[in-house]
Amino acid sequence: MPYVNIRITDEQVTAEQKAQLIQGATQLLVEVLGKNPATTFVIIDEVNTDNWGIAGNTVTNLRKQD
Amino acid sequence: MPYVNIRITDEQVTAEQKAQLIQGATQLLVEVLGKNPATTFVIIDEVNTDNWGIAGNTVTNLRKQD
Amino acid sequence: MPYVNIRITDEQVTAEQKAQLIQGATQLLVEVLGKNPATTFVIIDEVNTDNWGIAGNTVTNLRKQD
Amino acid sequence: MPYVNIRITDEQVTAEQKAQLIQGATQLLVEVLGKNPATTFVIIDEVNTDNWGIAGNTVTNLRKQD
Amino acid sequence: MPYVNIRITDEQVTAEQKAQLIQGATQLLVEVLGKNPATTFVIIDEVNTDNWGIAGNTVTNLRKQD
Amino acid sequence: MPYVNIRITDEQVTAEQKAQLIQGATQLLVEVLGKNPATTFVIIDEVNTDNWGIAGNTVTNLRKQD
Repeated sequence: MPYVNIRITDEQVTAEQKAQLIQGATQLLVEVLGKNPATTFVIIDEVNTDNWGIAGNTVTNLRKQD
Repeated sequence: MPYVNIRITDEQVTAEQKAQLIQGATQLLVEVLGKNPATTFVIIDEVNTDNWGIAGNTVTNLRKQD
Repeated sequence: MPYVNIRITDEQVTAEQKAQLIQGATQLLVEVLGKNPATTFVIIDEVNTDNWGIAGNTVTNLRKQD
Repeated sequence: MPYVNIRITDEQVTAEQKAQLIQGATQLLVEVLGKNPATTFVIIDEVNTDNWGIAGNTVTNLRKQD
Repeated sequence: MPYVNIRITDEQVTAEQKAQLIQGATQLLVEVLGKNPATTFVIIDEVNTDNWGIAGNTVTNLRKQD
Repeated sequence: MPYVNIRITDEQVTAEQKAQLIQGATQLLVEVLGKNPATTFVIIDEVNTDNWGIAGNTVTNLRKQD
């Protein structure tokens, strides 16, 4: 019955990549804890780079400095 | 002072249905625990079906198989 | 496939009350949105009153002022 | 290593205000707990006023009554 | 900069299993999206079976029916 | 009406420090966005170091390497 929430920045993640994250996270719970995949939820939240901060800066600003 | 977070797939939920979820969840906390509605928050997150997985599949794919 | 997270203060909530919250929240999603209860999750988080703040105060302090 | 999630209504918050929230929340963790800003995350979620309820009403409705 | 939150029932999960979940979830984000592991957080929440509901029942009750 | 969730490792945080986090986070929302403190929630989650991972390792293991 696990619930997995993956939060990432909203930077052109494809539907195929999302499907891989969902499959991989579900598989991980099956392998490590023997959980039932039928009742394993994975939710991906894509967050605008203006809304994600690290080290006191927005990711938008950090990307400009790269 | 409860906080309720309802996460559902983003599939044409109307403003009226959202209002019903908010009213119903608030009422539930009042009835079961005697909470004060004035400080009861309900937040609804609508999640794209590409971003929600169950049983290792995206809901987008599961809907196609119906 | 809804996911409902109910966060409340940790103040002697009984197992029976938790069961009522779970049943009521599930029923709400069935009635308002026609969701399938078999894949409806409800998770209750009980939070210490030292760790919950409102109006800039901890609930522990607010309870003392009552 | 703190993780801070700020949820607010989606009402014309500017990029500058978001940057201030991120900077301020990070600074708070540094000052109070001596945390390392380099591994402090702040994520801001903006929520539609139809999707946020208080006192059993949507914020959309509450704004109309003002 | 991903943030992964894994919520599972509190049923004798070992420190070794938690370490495997953390390693596996981090590896997944590296492989699928090329994320930097140094800024990938994984947080595991263990939830009492009284506090987790599925199909309108607590997991505590569902376990008794097995 | 903001909701702020601060997640930190469970390493002897005092009630006084928690009160400071709650006061500071509330003040931040008042100053930056003009929010009403009376309806500003702050919830602090303390997470066991076995349950928090960064860079693919548990914080428990990272602390040993210091």
